[in-house]
Amino acid sequence: MKHIGSQSAKLQYPVYIVSTSSIVGKKEGEGPLGKYFDVILEDLMVEKESWEKAEIEIANKSLNLALEKSGIKLKDIDYIISGDLLNQSMGSNFGIRSMERPYLGIFGACSTIGEALSIGAMIIDGDFATNILVGASSHFCAAEKQFRFPLNLGTQRPLTSTWTVTGDGSAVLSKNGTGPFISGITTGKIVDLGIKDVNNMGAAMAPAAADTICTHFKDFGTSPKDYDVIVTGDLGYVGHELTINLAEKEGFDLSKNYEDCGILIFDRETQDTHSGGSGCACSATTFAGYFYQKLKNKEINKMLFVPTGSLLSQTSSQQGESIPGIAHAVVIESGR
Amino acid sequence: MKHIGSQSAKLQYPVYIVSTSSIVGKKEGEGPLGKYFDVILEDLMVEKESWEKAEIEIANKSLNLALEKSGIKLKDIDYIISGDLLNQSMGSNFGIRSMERPYLGIFGACSTIGEALSIGAMIIDGDFATNILVGASSHFCAAEKQFRFPLNLGTQRPLTSTWTVTGDGSAVLSKNGTGPFISGITTGKIVDLGIKDVNNMGAAMAPAAADTICTHFKDFGTSPKDYDVIVTGDLGYVGHELTINLAEKEGFDLSKNYEDCGILIFDRETQDTHSGGSGCACSATTFAGYFYQKLKNKEINKMLFVPTGSLLSQTSSQQGESIPGIAHAVVIESGR
Repeated sequence: MKHIGSQSAKLQYPVYIVSTSSIVGKKEGEGPLGKYFDVILEDLMVEKESWEKAEIEIANKSLNLALEKSGIKLKDIDYIISGDLLNQSMGSNFGIRSMERPYLGIFGACSTIGEALSIGAMIIDGDFATNILVGASSHFCAAEKQFRFPLNLGTQRPLTSTWTVTGDGSAVLSKNGTGPFISGITTGKIVDLGIKDVNNMGAAMAPAAADTICTHFKDFGTSPKDYDVIVTGDLGYVGHELTINLAEKEGFDLSKNYEDCGILIFDRETQDTHSGGSGCACSATTFAGYFYQKLKNKEINKMLFVPTGSLLSQTSSQQGESIPGIAHAVVIESGR
Repeated sequence: MKHIGSQSAKLQYPVYIVSTSSIVGKKEGEGPLGKYFDVILEDLMVEKESWEKAEIEIANKSLNLALEKSGIKLKDIDYIISGDLLNQSMGSNFGIRSMERPYLGIFGACSTIGEALSIGAMIIDGDFATNILVGASSHFCAAEKQFRFPLNLGTQRPLTSTWTVTGDGSAVLSKNGTGPFISGITTGKIVDLGIKDVNNMGAAMAPAAADTICTHFKDFGTSPKDYDVIVTGDLGYVGHELTINLAEKEGFDLSKNYEDCGILIFDRETQDTHSGGSGCACSATTFAGYFYQKLKNKEINKMLFVPTGSLLSQTSSQQGESIPGIAHAVVIESGR
């Protein structure tokens, strides 16, 4: 049995991440990680007539770029697994529409890339596929319109709010390859401590992040020092600090080597995003651009990648519901 | 390799469907399949304050009922895989929130139960889990409000429209058991022939259904006569006929043993749903209630279950997009 502990699995064989693709918006390109991204868009509309259609185009371009970089032909992709934040996963469904390969649509909000890597790794390790294409996208303008206020209103953003990353991070997983590979996963459960503020998603997600990270250590019998870096998805400054505090209560010291993609992707001083970055593309592009290169260069040998999601909707917020959080952990090693 | 043909997989071991649960609304309970359902609700609000919260309650009750009937404890469920039609999968996320087990949220619109059974079967056969809880829900009132018009407007429904089933169909999959089991899957690709009418989803989904069914036959080297019954999800009268025509062009005769859950669940003469039933719960409850009992009784020994989905959203429709369709096929055998 590959299932270990309460929520985890150890893969029998390495599942290689043979290529990644990262496409981001102008603001992300001007941030500290700018040089690591494949494509930086000047125009957030990418010549389309709506933000949603722009997201579809970005997702499509990025999935195709990951494929191109892998050298694997589309017909040899056994499954596509992807998701996004738009209602009924419009970015993904329409983004992969022309690709004509078996499609497993997922919804994990901003944890989507973690869920995609997890399901993809299990399908390949279970001998059901040789190659799988995964991806996750988000678009600042489309997300603000859908979850908060239309941008044209000019609503003031509170200091706890995060900035949805525009872009798409994709990857090709394969049974065959060298280099960075997935060796284990810990699938998160929903944790909801009652946060209702849609402008404080870091606080809403931190309990789920801490829960998955601590469960991972227990299931694998490891501790923070066994990883070069532990990286959450998009908790931002508020959630990052909360996660450290929550893990400390469980006896794990995250203060030394714990980073958050939402903090890394924007510069706090010059880019004024308040609590940091968020969105499906936040962890997806930061991994696909920045961390994947660090793994390739062996600057990082083992990372615990923990994309985090707020499972809210406009409807749930309007009906006074709190925000359920989730986080999925994936162990990625640098390989040969 | 368990992957066969272009889009399929043959499981190495049987993945047993050890229990199912079906909760439906009053109208579905009055239909031809009424006696097969576990619970028939008198009140579509189930004492909640909104249709969406009612759907959450129905999903939660149904998942718990499937679990109870399986005799398996919640702590022994390794993964929950579920989805629904509400924005950001509100029915599922909030429906399983209290269950505290690893959660893989999926979005396949009305094909969701097919996707859940497929992913669940691969995870169990891949040795990553012993028991998995799967489910899919929909609610007529919530779906009409979200995808078409609020009911209070009294908008006239055209004759091609289908009636979203209120309810939830859930199941427990296990490595261990006897009785009905999953033996193979064919995962669908998106097919979009340009249908834009949100009131004619049968026509939008039929090309995807026919594509998956014909691909399944080719991948497994089978033909319609190798199955006691082939069952699509929610094509209704319009889509059922189109699917027969499309399959015929590929050389497969579906006219003998092909049924559609959307046709079975409501009585055409007395219930006036126009083209039939639809929604995630249409195929999920018809399988969980009706077909599961037929499999248990050996009235059916082998079925090809093909839940079908329209991957539209309010946003995509309003922006003039066509409706991408998808269908996932699952081979279910009656077992010992």
